[in-house]
Order: sequence, then structure tokens, then C-alpha cells
Amino acid sequence: MAFLVKKFGGTSVGTVERIQHVAKMVQTARQSGDDVVVVVSAMSGETNRLIGLAKEIMPAVVDVRELDVLVSTGEQVTIALLAMALKELGVDARSYTGSQVKILTDSSHSKARILNIDKAPILDDIKAGKVVVVAGFQGVDEHGNITTLGRGGSDTSAVAMAAALSADECQIYTDVDGVYTTDPRVESRARRLDRITFEEMLEMASLGSKVLQIRAVEFAGKYNVPVRVLSSFKPGEGTLITLDEGENHMEQALVSGIAFNRDEAQITVAGVADQPGIAYSILGPIADLNIEVDVILQNIGENGLTDFTFTVHRDEYKRVMDFLKGRQAELNAEAIHGNDRIVKLSIVGVGMRSHAGIASRMFKALSENGINLRMITTSEIKISVVIDENFLELGVRALHEEFELADEVNNVS
Amino acid sequence: MAFLVKKFGGTSVGTVERIQHVAKMVQTARQSGDDVVVVVSAMSGETNRLIGLAKEIMPAVVDVRELDVLVSTGEQVTIALLAMALKELGVDARSYTGSQVKILTDSSHSKARILNIDKAPILDDIKAGKVVVVAGFQGVDEHGNITTLGRGGSDTSAVAMAAALSADECQIYTDVDGVYTTDPRVESRARRLDRITFEEMLEMASLGSKVLQIRAVEFAGKYNVPVRVLSSFKPGEGTLITLDEGENHMEQALVSGIAFNRDEAQITVAGVADQPGIAYSILGPIADLNIEVDVILQNIGENGLTDFTFTVHRDEYKRVMDFLKGRQAELNAEAIHGNDRIVKLSIVGVGMRSHAGIASRMFKALSENGINLRMITTSEIKISVVIDENFLELGVRALHEEFELADEVNNVS
Repeated sequence: MAFLVKKFGGTSVGTVERIQHVAKMVQTARQSGDDVVVVVSAMSGETNRLIGLAKEIMPAVVDVRELDVLVSTGEQVTIALLAMALKELGVDARSYTGSQVKILTDSSHSKARILNIDKAPILDDIKAGKVVVVAGFQGVDEHGNITTLGRGGSDTSAVAMAAALSADECQIYTDVDGVYTTDPRVESRARRLDRITFEEMLEMASLGSKVLQIRAVEFAGKYNVPVRVLSSFKPGEGTLITLDEGENHMEQALVSGIAFNRDEAQITVAGVADQPGIAYSILGPIADLNIEVDVILQNIGENGLTDFTFTVHRDEYKRVMDFLKGRQAELNAEAIHGNDRIVKLSIVGVGMRSHAGIASRMFKALSENGINLRMITTSEIKISVVIDENFLELGVRALHEEFELADEVNNVS
Repeated sequence: MAFLVKKFGGTSVGTVERIQHVAKMVQTARQSGDDVVVVVSAMSGETNRLIGLAKEIMPAVVDVRELDVLVSTGEQVTIALLAMALKELGVDARSYTGSQVKILTDSSHSKARILNIDKAPILDDIKAGKVVVVAGFQGVDEHGNITTLGRGGSDTSAVAMAAALSADECQIYTDVDGVYTTDPRVESRARRLDRITFEEMLEMASLGSKVLQIRAVEFAGKYNVPVRVLSSFKPGEGTLITLDEGENHMEQALVSGIAFNRDEAQITVAGVADQPGIAYSILGPIADLNIEVDVILQNIGENGLTDFTFTVHRDEYKRVMDFLKGRQAELNAEAIHGNDRIVKLSIVGVGMRSHAGIASRMFKALSENGINLRMITTSEIKISVVIDENFLELGVRALHEEFELADEVNNVS
């Protein structure tokens, strides 16, 4: 007997059979007395098909208003089909587009932010015993223009819906059955976490454990909406993401998970003047090229000179190297060098806030395995190192072992 | 320098290339100073694809509300792509769904009727120099539910739009370049009409010259919107459909065209009591079966008995025959017989109102060609006969000749 918002992504609604399977899962929830609002994405492949059509017409798609009109049809197809599938099972249901519901956003087409949700019609339908099926990823601005929240925005729609409706839980169904201590393809002993905090999830997500859209997690944290990640295909409890660190548990795990990112490349601008404005003079023009920078690191300089290092996506490596080499004289740098064969490896856990010595345990475990650390950065609940890509799997397994993540005894967070 | 509503059907926008071609035609109109509102259908095949998905889920599609949510995405894709294609040509444009514009309809899902169009935003855009691109076939009811007007409803959308905006002309682009005196595949000398009246068009359309949706023509007649039928692919003036019979012309053609319908089957209930209520007792139950009846004919009876004859679509022939044979005793009929190898052949023309002798010229021409008339019905501007299907082409050519439709001298209507 709970009020649930359930979100199903493109893979979960990718075929008519899968939509029918989702309808059965919703039916089961209804039969056990739950009130259900379902948020769905476009059928997998549909959004890309639509964007493909747009690109045939506008090779450089500049008209984001019309692009939103176009791609928002993807979820509209799904809501209608799911509502039909529910009715076919005898479950009363009603679909709503983002405009109908209405999910008010700002006017930033293709990356709009949700401002308000008109919950009255939804609550009326719920009271009347209906399942409400809402198109994710889309909204409407104050002028009635169709907007979209950007890729993966259906997660955000679901969390916002759960927040607006004060739902008991926002359940995100994906093709994985929860959040793991690390990638099971790298460490077969990786274990599903029963629970993780929003902060940890943010660090895990941004580090490459792509279970949930990062904006959705931020949103959930801000409005304190409990989010559960579950599999559409495999029954199970999934992983609950909450503000609460799990006060009923005896002990907090020190480290919740091992995250990594294979897509990084590192670039160093060596021997530049250690003076105010140097970071901006290097990174400003790179931001202007619309290139995202991940790790940024500058050590204390000597003799008025310093080495400035950062990482970018591996695909951008050559472009950034060429760009900086062209600016070497202007920057008055001794050298520009880099490496696109590196990876980032991180440990994440709210437990490390209150425990010293986590970092040194990490470094020791890696050095015992002969792994050289090229860069180190830390935040309150995360320690990241950059290492040679060849050592990634070894490093993940070493840290998984060191922090006893596979050990059931440690399964307390 | 005119205010035009241009409507392009599914074939005209069936591919990205065709959408770009439509954009060029609209650009040309803009360049010659016209204000343009474009109404478009779904890309050909799209509506059927969507209905196919619905039928996979609901073999008997009963949820018309959700079906409308589903199929209305078809036109939404087209409006976005066309607006993009126009902008790519440097023509400022803005798309609107039926909900956005808004085209208010009643709540009869999948066969809604237009009640009102909010013309203010369109006129604002037109004033600002924009081309307005509107999704045809769809609207929104007073509760915000998406509705559709039924198959072919984009023609009706276009005419309603032209009426609401007091446009100078509603131009319907199709795959034919106008309305012909008869089907050119049957009579190669068939000639495109420069002009035809609404009444004639209604008779032509309902008789099988399927150029325009019949409801659109009724709508155009009611609001006196001049409609022009043109080809998307072949330049030309098309055919103008107006209330005005062409007063500037010296002489009115007696007959404007020869229409025919190959899909008919005739059924006779012979020897029933010639008494009040007999027509209803035969046709009422057939209407309840959702079967449309075309020609209905009952001659003066003898000895208190009469023969009641009507035509149905050939596909329904067996069903209706079986049904009536099962009711023969109940109807107290002497016999039920029929023929599904017949066709209907008609001459249409407002000119025949004021000219006697047209019918006899028709019958004479047919009999001189050895064609036996099985049924005859007449209206003010139309005379129809039912004949054996083998004689259809011969009959069309004989009448085309008799009424000199191929003759340029007669090209005055």
C-alpha cells in the first residue's frame, strides 16, 4: 500500500512485448494495493531515428524548438501504447504528455529545467483508481512550447513527479538490477548495494557508473525523494538511494564502491608562470570550444613556474593538444605533453568522511600491485587516482579486495 | 500577394526529400509576397505503422482516446521537419500541434469535429513574417485531450483553418493535378477542369473521384472557402472549387464530369409488403451492423407488394446477403437476390438543373452502345445508373463523348 512513481527507460519499453511486460509489472503493483504513476521514455532507437531525420534536413541542428516538437513524439507513442496495454489487462489507465499534465519548464529547448508540475489532475485520476502514464523527458514552457529536458531526462521527470506528488518512492527500472560496488564485468565478485546515499551516487555516476542520470540524482537529493534502482527484467529489491545513511545499521561501510572511467586523457601544460589567471588563460578557451574538462590539478610551483594538468574525454585529446601547442608561445609554457592511455580510478564512500587513513590504504594497495599513480585528487567522499590504462582491472580488483566489498560481513551500508 | 493555406498530404511529405521540396514550394510563395499557413499530414506509412503497433497491443482497438494520442504523433513529426526545412532555406517558420494552435474539437475521439480555431497566435506569426506550419488531422477537446478528425481529416483541418483565418484560398496539394472530367485511366481524353462547384465536387467525390475528403468539401461549401486542388509534383493551376458557378463565362457546361464507382454490389429484397416502415425494417438492422448503404431504390408496388433495392460496398455483399436471407421469413419477402458484378456510373453538373433532356441524352448514349440499365437514380445535379461491370469503360467513354467533355470549345465551366 504505497504511492509509487515507476520509471521505465527506452530498453524496458523497446518493443510491444516489453511494453506488455511493463503493464504486467504495473498490474502486479496495483493488485497489491499500490497507487502508481508511470513515467516512460521513448522506445529504444526511436529518439535516434527522429534525430536522424532532423539531421538529414538540418545537418547542424540549430532549431532546438522544432527539434523538441519532433523528439517529444517518441514518448508520446509509448504512453499511448502502455495505457492501451494496461487497459487490455483490465487496469484502468490514462496517458498524459508533458504539455497535458502539465510539466512546466523554462524555455531552454533540449535542456529545459522543470519549474512546476500540475499535480491536481494526476491525484484526481489516482483517487479514481487509475494508473497515470506520463511522458518522461518532456514538458511545456509558459508560452505552450514543447520542451525537452535533454538526454536521459526521463529519470529527472520521474523524480520531479515523485517530489511533486510526495510519492513514497521513485522506482527507476533499468537493465541493471541495482548499484554495484564496482563493474561486475571487471570484478566478478562485485556486490549489489542494498542502499547508497545521494552523495555517493553522484560520485559514482559522474565517475562512470552510469545507472542514473546525474541531474535526477541531484534533484532527488534536493527534494529528498527516495529513489530505488531496479531491473525491468530480473526480480529483486534493487538499490535504494536515500539521504539517510542508514542509521539502523550498526556500522557504516567506509567505502561503498569502486568507480572508474576509461575515457580519459591527460594533458599537462608544463613550466608556466605560477601567477593569478593562469588556470583561466588555459581552460577558458577550452571551455569556449565546448570541451568538458574533468580532473584539474595544479601543484605548488617552484621558481615561479608550475605544471598545470587536466583530463578531457579521450575523443577530444588530439583536438586539445593541437590547440594548446598552437598557443604554447602565447602561454609561455616550457612544454605541452599528454597521454591518452590513462584511466581514472576512484573509491567512493560517505564513511571516509569520519575515518582517516582511507587514502593511505588505497595508495598502499595499489603500490603493492605495482601500480604507479600519475595524479591524485580527493574530495570529501571520494579519492581518485589516474593510472596507466593497462592497470585498470588490476587496480579495481585490488581496491575491491582491500575494502572488503565482496565480503557479506561488510554489507552494512 | 495573397493569404494562402496550403495543405500537403502524406505522399507529398513522405520522405525527407519531399519535405524539402514542399519547403521550396512554400519559399517560392513567400518570395512572391504571399502569406502562408501550411497544414500537413503524417509522412505516408507512418499512421499505418502506429495503428499497427496499437493493434499488436489491442487486437480490437477500443481505447480511442489513447489511439488519438498515438497517431497524432505522425503529423507532429512532419510539422517539426517541415519547419526545420523552411528555416534551412532561410524562411522563418513556426510549427504548431493541434493542441497548441489550438484547434478545439468535440470529444469524439478518432472522428472529432472542429468547433473553433484560435487564430490570434497564427495571425501574430504571419504579421511577424513567419510561415505557420500546423499539424492536420488533429485537435484538442475542452478538457485538453488530444483528438483526431479521422482518416483524411487533414483536408478538413486545412479548410477550417482557411475559413477561420479568412484566407484567400485553401490549396490542397495531392498526387493529381486537379479534378478531371473523368478518370484518365479509363478515358485518355479526360480533361482537367479549371473550375468546379462545391456541389459538383461533392457528387464527384462521393461517387468515387477521390481527390478531396468529402467532409472538407462540405466544410468549404458551408464557409465559402475557395479550394484549389493542385499537384505537389507537377506545376499547374489545378482546379478551383468555388460556390460561384463562373459567372464571367458565356456559357455553363451542362455536364462537368463522369464519375463511377467499381466497388458496389446490389441487393434486392423482392416481393415485400408495400407498407410504411418496410424500408426501415430492412435497412435499420444493416445500419446497426455498421454497413454503409449507397443507392437506395424502391419502385411503386403492385398488388400491395414491392421490390426494395439498395447497394453496398462489394466487400460487404456476402455478409449482407447472408444476413437478409436469415431474415427472409421475418421480412415476409418472396426472394432475396443480388449481384456483386455491377458498377455505378454517373454524370454530374450544375448545368443540368436548368436544362431538360440531359437524362434522355444519357440513356440514349448508353443504349446505343448496348448497355442495359439495371437501376436509375437522380438528384438535382446528378444522374446515376447501375450497369454490369463489364460495360463500365464503354459507358464512361460513351458519356464523355456524348457530353463533349474532351472538346476544348466546351471548356467553359
